[in-house]
Amino acid sequence: MTPSLTGLPFDDIRGLMQSLPDADLDAVEKVRARDRTLTKPAGALGRMEEIVEWLAAWSSKSPPSVTRPLVAIFASAHGVTQRGVSAYPDAVNRAMLENFAAGGAAINQLCVANDIGLKVFDLAIDMPTPDIGSEPAMSEKDCAATIAFGMEAIAGGTDLLCVGEMGIGNTTVAAAIYTALYGGGAEAWVGPGTGVDGAGLKRKAAAVEAAMATHAGHLNDPLEVLRRVGGREIAAIAGAILAARYQRVPVLLDGYVTTAAAAVLHALEPSSIAHCMAAHRSAEPAHGRALERLGLKPLLDLGMRLGEGSGAALAVGVVKAAIGCHVGMATFEQAAVPRAN
Amino acid sequence: MTPSLTGLPFDDIRGLMQSLPDADLDAVEKVRARDRTLTKPAGALGRMEEIVEWLAAWSSKSPPSVTRPLVAIFASAHGVTQRGVSAYPDAVNRAMLENFAAGGAAINQLCVANDIGLKVFDLAIDMPTPDIGSEPAMSEKDCAATIAFGMEAIAGGTDLLCVGEMGIGNTTVAAAIYTALYGGGAEAWVGPGTGVDGAGLKRKAAAVEAAMATHAGHLNDPLEVLRRVGGREIAAIAGAILAARYQRVPVLLDGYVTTAAAAVLHALEPSSIAHCMAAHRSAEPAHGRALERLGLKPLLDLGMRLGEGSGAALAVGVVKAAIGCHVGMATFEQAAVPRAN
Repeated sequence: MTPSLTGLPFDDIRGLMQSLPDADLDAVEKVRARDRTLTKPAGALGRMEEIVEWLAAWSSKSPPSVTRPLVAIFASAHGVTQRGVSAYPDAVNRAMLENFAAGGAAINQLCVANDIGLKVFDLAIDMPTPDIGSEPAMSEKDCAATIAFGMEAIAGGTDLLCVGEMGIGNTTVAAAIYTALYGGGAEAWVGPGTGVDGAGLKRKAAAVEAAMATHAGHLNDPLEVLRRVGGREIAAIAGAILAARYQRVPVLLDGYVTTAAAAVLHALEPSSIAHCMAAHRSAEPAHGRALERLGLKPLLDLGMRLGEGSGAALAVGVVKAAIGCHVGMATFEQAAVPRAN
Repeated sequence: MTPSLTGLPFDDIRGLMQSLPDADLDAVEKVRARDRTLTKPAGALGRMEEIVEWLAAWSSKSPPSVTRPLVAIFASAHGVTQRGVSAYPDAVNRAMLENFAAGGAAINQLCVANDIGLKVFDLAIDMPTPDIGSEPAMSEKDCAATIAFGMEAIAGGTDLLCVGEMGIGNTTVAAAIYTALYGGGAEAWVGPGTGVDGAGLKRKAAAVEAAMATHAGHLNDPLEVLRRVGGREIAAIAGAILAARYQRVPVLLDGYVTTAAAAVLHALEPSSIAHCMAAHRSAEPAHGRALERLGLKPLLDLGMRLGEGSGAALAVGVVKAAIGCHVGMATFEQAAVPRAN
């Protein structure tokens, strides 16, 4: 059961971290037992076998199934764009929400391709959060409410959650979160995002540095990092990831920005994202390094850098195929195939 | 048009290499022109965009489509198994053919998952080729006929060819081909295959070394490499790849064994495999190195090592999704999304 979400202050979120449901090892063992009987050399399906075990562990179901996968896109706007950190104007935010609704975005096509439901959550897209370079993005109350919104958002709707996002400026915000959590300086974490040039990249690094200076002394607590230098979509994604854990729904992380939400949770309690798999390594240079910090190895590496949940949606095809093999293959006995010598 | 195949001697195959159809650059330019209008930052779909361009180039169709993808499995048996190179007995060959027919193998599930046709070609599965460690696998006539069989096999049947194989012992045969073509010694090219242990791996290396010694002085010609230390499935796959080029059908290579067929063609004429994309990097350790020799970067890297066309079949889902994005996305104009600053 998902705990009550009303008026969740940060301390209650910290409390949630202490009572996370564990992996269902019995379900994993059942998967492994069946896998040993299937007509293939042991381990020959590689990470396809790992996927099935992961689904069983976190859905408590063996064999696991994915019949209602969902891409949940959380969209928000960011005051830090006034620092010239993006190649695109803020007006893209609303236009892309309309594009999602009309079925014209990449994520719409990927959801069609892999038969995935799509929900888009508008987190006050016309009201940018304050510029993180000079003030906190959210109050504690707003941040907690946004986390709670993310928790509610996925209630009762899916057996595989793909978290996605949209928000001009949010790779800068994500870079600020990584810099605050992991150090190493802003330049190590910023990247081209939607496609900024050399000068734009310098503005991104400067914006992150300004955020680090403004919020210095307050960045030891991951939830403070989230509210001060984060954004609403990242807070909501953190909530969705947590709620999925309680509802025994495995999560596919998408790219650079959604991974920042996982990084906040991981910094609070490393085991809190054990039900998450990384779907795709973004072309955003620092994403691979962020995934390494989280101990996650992405399923795909196709050079995409779009957000919207695109990498996660693409990986759903692989996840479904993995289940198909596990459930549909004949056993050595059924097929009368000789075993290894 | 595919040239006449009757009684094709090696010299005619060499002749085919001189008149290969080229990439359709007009179709590629049309893809690029449309891509620039789609509602995403330029390049943000990474290799998904490369896939669409590749399909257009080699199918001469813009936008490209994949409505009849086909997995063609070529199956054969290998006398070299008498040297103890495989963890499985030869009897697995026929049993697996029956498993394919009954729908119980991994490839059957992957074809269902991605809506792919499946054809299995039995290349005298009960009559192993002679042990390559002591004599040639095929006569020139048999090898040429098998290449021609592979060319016929895919006639009139697909718009995306996934080449796959099955044959106990064929990772040893593939290793012999790589060693003959690229040097470096047998140990650099053999691997666990279906799962041989240390002693089995040594027997594989010894078998490849025996083949190199037996056929020394005859391995400068890639077609001689194919007939002497290859196998029927690899010869047929080489034919299928060539025929696909003439029929303007793009090809997805699968793993370690199918790549050996591409390596033979590449050694004859590097441009002859320009219509091939590598679907998946096998867990077989030397596969990545073989792909590098061919200048191919695999789409997927999921640690599979099963053959059967499994990696290629899995990649078909990605290919279809790439087309879906290219064809289905709205343009900036249609969606009234502001462009980059």
